[in-house]
Amino acid sequence: MKIVYVVPGPMDNKEAKRRENLLKEWVFPSTEVEVRTVTTGPASIESMYEEYLSIPETAKLMVEAEREGVAGAVLGCAGDPGLDAYRELTKDMVIMGPGAVGMHAAVLRGSRFSVLTVMDSTITSVYDLVDKAGLRSKFVSVRAVNIPVLDLAKDREGTLAKLVEYGKKVLEDGADCIVLGCMSMGFLEVAEDMEKELGVPVINPAKVAIKMTEAFAHINYTHSKKAFHTPPKIANGKVKSLDELLVSK
Amino acid sequence: MKIVYVVPGPMDNKEAKRRENLLKEWVFPSTEVEVRTVTTGPASIESMYEEYLSIPETAKLMVEAEREGVAGAVLGCAGDPGLDAYRELTKDMVIMGPGAVGMHAAVLRGSRFSVLTVMDSTITSVYDLVDKAGLRSKFVSVRAVNIPVLDLAKDREGTLAKLVEYGKKVLEDGADCIVLGCMSMGFLEVAEDMEKELGVPVINPAKVAIKMTEAFAHINYTHSKKAFHTPPKIANGKVKSLDELLVSK
Amino acid sequence: MKIVYVVPGPMDNKEAKRRENLLKEWVFPSTEVEVRTVTTGPASIESMYEEYLSIPETAKLMVEAEREGVAGAVLGCAGDPGLDAYRELTKDMVIMGPGAVGMHAAVLRGSRFSVLTVMDSTITSVYDLVDKAGLRSKFVSVRAVNIPVLDLAKDREGTLAKLVEYGKKVLEDGADCIVLGCMSMGFLEVAEDMEKELGVPVINPAKVAIKMTEAFAHINYTHSKKAFHTPPKIANGKVKSLDELLVSK
Amino acid sequence: MKIVYVVPGPMDNKEAKRRENLLKEWVFPSTEVEVRTVTTGPASIESMYEEYLSIPETAKLMVEAEREGVAGAVLGCAGDPGLDAYRELTKDMVIMGPGAVGMHAAVLRGSRFSVLTVMDSTITSVYDLVDKAGLRSKFVSVRAVNIPVLDLAKDREGTLAKLVEYGKKVLEDGADCIVLGCMSMGFLEVAEDMEKELGVPVINPAKVAIKMTEAFAHINYTHSKKAFHTPPKIANGKVKSLDELLVSK
Amino acid sequence: MKIVYVVPGPMDNKEAKRRENLLKEWVFPSTEVEVRTVTTGPASIESMYEEYLSIPETAKLMVEAEREGVAGAVLGCAGDPGLDAYRELTKDMVIMGPGAVGMHAAVLRGSRFSVLTVMDSTITSVYDLVDKAGLRSKFVSVRAVNIPVLDLAKDREGTLAKLVEYGKKVLEDGADCIVLGCMSMGFLEVAEDMEKELGVPVINPAKVAIKMTEAFAHINYTHSKKAFHTPPKIANGKVKSLDELLVSK
Amino acid sequence: MKIVYVVPGPMDNKEAKRRENLLKEWVFPSTEVEVRTVTTGPASIESMYEEYLSIPETAKLMVEAEREGVAGAVLGCAGDPGLDAYRELTKDMVIMGPGAVGMHAAVLRGSRFSVLTVMDSTITSVYDLVDKAGLRSKFVSVRAVNIPVLDLAKDREGTLAKLVEYGKKVLEDGADCIVLGCMSMGFLEVAEDMEKELGVPVINPAKVAIKMTEAFAHINYTHSKKAFHTPPKIANGKVKSLDELLVSK
Repeated sequence: MKIVYVVPGPMDNKEAKRRENLLKEWVFPSTEVEVRTVTTGPASIESMYEEYLSIPETAKLMVEAEREGVAGAVLGCAGDPGLDAYRELTKDMVIMGPGAVGMHAAVLRGSRFSVLTVMDSTITSVYDLVDKAGLRSKFVSVRAVNIPVLDLAKDREGTLAKLVEYGKKVLEDGADCIVLGCMSMGFLEVAEDMEKELGVPVINPAKVAIKMTEAFAHINYTHSKKAFHTPPKIANGKVKSLDELLVSK
Repeated sequence: MKIVYVVPGPMDNKEAKRRENLLKEWVFPSTEVEVRTVTTGPASIESMYEEYLSIPETAKLMVEAEREGVAGAVLGCAGDPGLDAYRELTKDMVIMGPGAVGMHAAVLRGSRFSVLTVMDSTITSVYDLVDKAGLRSKFVSVRAVNIPVLDLAKDREGTLAKLVEYGKKVLEDGADCIVLGCMSMGFLEVAEDMEKELGVPVINPAKVAIKMTEAFAHINYTHSKKAFHTPPKIANGKVKSLDELLVSK
Repeated sequence: MKIVYVVPGPMDNKEAKRRENLLKEWVFPSTEVEVRTVTTGPASIESMYEEYLSIPETAKLMVEAEREGVAGAVLGCAGDPGLDAYRELTKDMVIMGPGAVGMHAAVLRGSRFSVLTVMDSTITSVYDLVDKAGLRSKFVSVRAVNIPVLDLAKDREGTLAKLVEYGKKVLEDGADCIVLGCMSMGFLEVAEDMEKELGVPVINPAKVAIKMTEAFAHINYTHSKKAFHTPPKIANGKVKSLDELLVSK
Repeated sequence: MKIVYVVPGPMDNKEAKRRENLLKEWVFPSTEVEVRTVTTGPASIESMYEEYLSIPETAKLMVEAEREGVAGAVLGCAGDPGLDAYRELTKDMVIMGPGAVGMHAAVLRGSRFSVLTVMDSTITSVYDLVDKAGLRSKFVSVRAVNIPVLDLAKDREGTLAKLVEYGKKVLEDGADCIVLGCMSMGFLEVAEDMEKELGVPVINPAKVAIKMTEAFAHINYTHSKKAFHTPPKIANGKVKSLDELLVSK
Repeated sequence: MKIVYVVPGPMDNKEAKRRENLLKEWVFPSTEVEVRTVTTGPASIESMYEEYLSIPETAKLMVEAEREGVAGAVLGCAGDPGLDAYRELTKDMVIMGPGAVGMHAAVLRGSRFSVLTVMDSTITSVYDLVDKAGLRSKFVSVRAVNIPVLDLAKDREGTLAKLVEYGKKVLEDGADCIVLGCMSMGFLEVAEDMEKELGVPVINPAKVAIKMTEAFAHINYTHSKKAFHTPPKIANGKVKSLDELLVSK
Repeated sequence: MKIVYVVPGPMDNKEAKRRENLLKEWVFPSTEVEVRTVTTGPASIESMYEEYLSIPETAKLMVEAEREGVAGAVLGCAGDPGLDAYRELTKDMVIMGPGAVGMHAAVLRGSRFSVLTVMDSTITSVYDLVDKAGLRSKFVSVRAVNIPVLDLAKDREGTLAKLVEYGKKVLEDGADCIVLGCMSMGFLEVAEDMEKELGVPVINPAKVAIKMTEAFAHINYTHSKKAFHTPPKIANGKVKSLDELLVSK
């Protein structure tokens, strides 16, 4: 069974490989994992505009993966950009967004969760994501460490210290589970260190998303086509490919 | 004071002109209105994927309009695709999404509202939009007439009959206000006819969006930059233009 | 097109004229504005009891205005006292309450709002108003500056300082928009000064209410009679006037 | 211990006496009950305007009762008009509104409740009352039998038949408890008959309100003055009586 | 009319008698009160496991009381353990849980309430209880004094001081009513002392539960059997007694 | 890695073996599965009382499994009876309740879900479970097929027909995912047949619970001890074993 992890922005091959190796450590032996990255997209995602920019190219990778018979795909951004669109465009492949998965996992492990996000610029989108996931009554707070995504890994200890500092704040807010709101935080592998300091579960969105995708793909738990219809123009046969949905005057 | 109405898909000039003329009828004499359309985009928007497809080109028109000193912009799709992104990218221009505006207007006019949308494929996005607007406790139901966007105007009487038929259903659901969930419904000018048949307010998203934009623009009621931050890479000066946010490997 | 602004308490003519002049500055040239005040009512409104006291006389002014063919009316109190009753008693005139309008405007401009109110005695009513508007999921907090309504204008700088002080507190609470919860705060014209200090939109309930009323009145967006029925005794013809609804034994 | 039941509209003495006798049957032997009625007010309450009309005179009876040392007061209308105001104006007397009491009682007896109200014109106010009580998540539906208040008792069997008919509808809606949304329904003593037909609890707002008031008054469970502040002008001594809160220019 | 107060854990006779005497002080003269205790159960209840442990024996006392013709029963734990089960097993006896009763009473007396509980270990269950009661929109916060149940009475003054200290915190959180979340706090009779210090109502769950049970029992306000069905095996006659519901392989 | 599936009621060995075999089909090759059943408990669970009856014996099996080093446990009842208690009593073993897991899985696969439960007697508990899971805003409806648990397997085709019939009803209610609310429905393996008829995902609680437990156990995603504290008497060392928590007088 094959799972692809689709990075919705260009990423250098070394880092992509490093992430692939981590993902492989997390899955069961029989699960094959491959990281795929778009060639054109945002350098990192710290705004809704960058989220949207990432979608057209990522959609192509998703559709391609399904055609190849890939069983499941993880969308590699904790804002879940385009998740509903990718589900509209596919039918047989499980696709999971780590934002929603991370928050549901928190509720399955605890009672009330907070999110630690990268920048103040992503706070509003966390609220919107919580509402989209339907989890407002379990949500305590969101706080930003204000370290740009591309700087998170430059000083792992500094980042960890900030995450612990803000983790303590959300515990005071009342959280009993913490969700990391960024994939680069996930691949920094700080969750375990944070747990030691904070004494509560810290959800790594990369790890939990690949596990949930693996679990669902293994039993063909794909998405509801009544919730995520095939775009009518494709369903009706008026349009034959993704590309034709984009027209010019 | 100038307001632009930005159509997020290509539209033939005649229809664009027709819509512009209607919009001009709705505003105050001192308000200038111009319809602008992207040259590349989805033919119509009936899926989340088409919503996302429309964003990159529309963003450019929005940023351009602000640079020209335009006071307000209406986003010409009732799904409000990219609204948060356009607000991130601008600061001094009021931008309104007719989806959110229509629903808030319904709550300001009545007590409980339903949405009539085009296709079953847009029902999930209506729920998400209601939650994003924070109006779940005032929301009764959404029903689709299942007429494709591009067919709505082909048989105005047929469309009106369907809208009245489904309008009666949502009244039975308990609504006391009805929101039309598609701009092409708005420019078909059926709301008044529906009101006569149904006896409750029927919100035309095009009309109410231009009025709200006009009202807010007139008093400089722009959006909160604390809610919609400028993308950090632009704010920090690392990136000089929209185009540079998109990179290739 | 004529809009009346109805003050639900007695007000000296000079202050009423001052307010009328401000309102005139805010509307479009073609909109006529007139301030009307009851002759008997509460000196100011800082309690629910005073809200209720204001209703019978204000109702008469509302009904009278509709009879005259006035297009829209603003209820001049941010607690929206009697709004539903005035809508029951009218049909063709737009009537807006600045409390609800201000909160919906905040949600249209930002993501999460707080209210600054006058006294601790009005805090419970703000919660009730938020629930009535259906906006609990967008509401962050309410804080009172504890300056009586009639003292707000006595020391404009002192009032502004307090509002900025409490504005900072609600920003810490997480708000990205602030709503002023009192018309006298609105006519003090402090919102712009607050915005400069606080960096987020500050909604002036007087300004936004007149603009929304003007916008809705211009397109005949009156209220739903299914939500706000004519009182049955009037609808059935058993009672011919407002006064007859009040009987004595 | 004395409880007063305050009718917020004029009522003929015979009917007032009949109600007093019923109330006396429901209380414990040591509890004294007296029905008091305003001399001027609405003939019946079927609209928000009539609710508001009832408040000024009722407030005087409430304040007077507290001065006499009455232990508790029931507000005799299921819309709870003015309840918050009466609590602002008193401190030592328990005051209960049968609307809120009835709905909380339903939740204490079952899991999900519906309300049967008199007229379509009171449906919106039931939603508002549910929200004010904080019970939206337990609320199933509201339906109106559309019999005017003053006609309810004219044909007891006809009214009962209608209530059973609509009771069956709300059971289909999913309710497991039914709340009668009108005091005249309560004093018609139909709840027990309805229970026999419907097999679920039917809350008589008159009966449960007097019992809850009696229970709370017996242990001095008055209202929170932090929730219902004394009007500042009275608290500060600037105004000496209720009447002085109403001023004329 | 007889009310039993059922302690769901073993309690020494002296303390049971002391509690019975207090309960007798709170009821009307014609109400008979008896405290009954299980002989086997948890020593105190500070965890969900202990809640569940208490249920089988308590169920027997409840069923027995109904058979004797007892009119009402108070479940003697503020976590309301097994309340729904006891209601399934009975039909004619009012059974109240002080957890739900206390929270509804708070909402009937004020606008927004907080809970003071014994230990951090009961915080999650307070959230669940609030949701089960349907009162999340009226709930402000829960705080634990972290004094074990069995130590509460060892140092009444120390306990009171802690409760006042945490009471001040929840007032800052925004509460205008406080609910004591433990019966042993109730029987310590600290609520009145707390009210003097804090100026807001402090709900004694023991006192309000016996009063509500007394009030409801007096008018036969039992629970909805549509909400709390008799277990099908008993309803169908396949099982003749409680004991037979427990089978062994 | 070993997962136990704990049946909280006595079950004959043949059926237990059959279920174990199905569970083994669903997991990855490296995962060991063992079904364990209590020897004393309810014959089936169709009421809250039976839920509670199952807890004391099941708790022992859970604690024992953790001591053995089992990685994860599935609680074999879709009402999740005692889940919070088992989490209080353990620390290193993942424990999942299929009720909550099934509902979260539905939200991860679709947008709005309904539950099909066995009997009317379990409807209230489904509402409570939805609220406990925090998923009310994604919940559409619950309907009971009214086939006793122990009869579900007697006529597989009849049961399937009923489930399809009620499945159609919940699709009309608006659901786009269906959750089976009973483990015996899960082990009947009807979900796939239902999906073919209904065209939407049908969640098998047994299958999804074992997969989620397997996934979480594989990465040590245990529960939050801040949400589910060890019972204080055990944490403080006052009590050495589960049995000692139960005392007699």
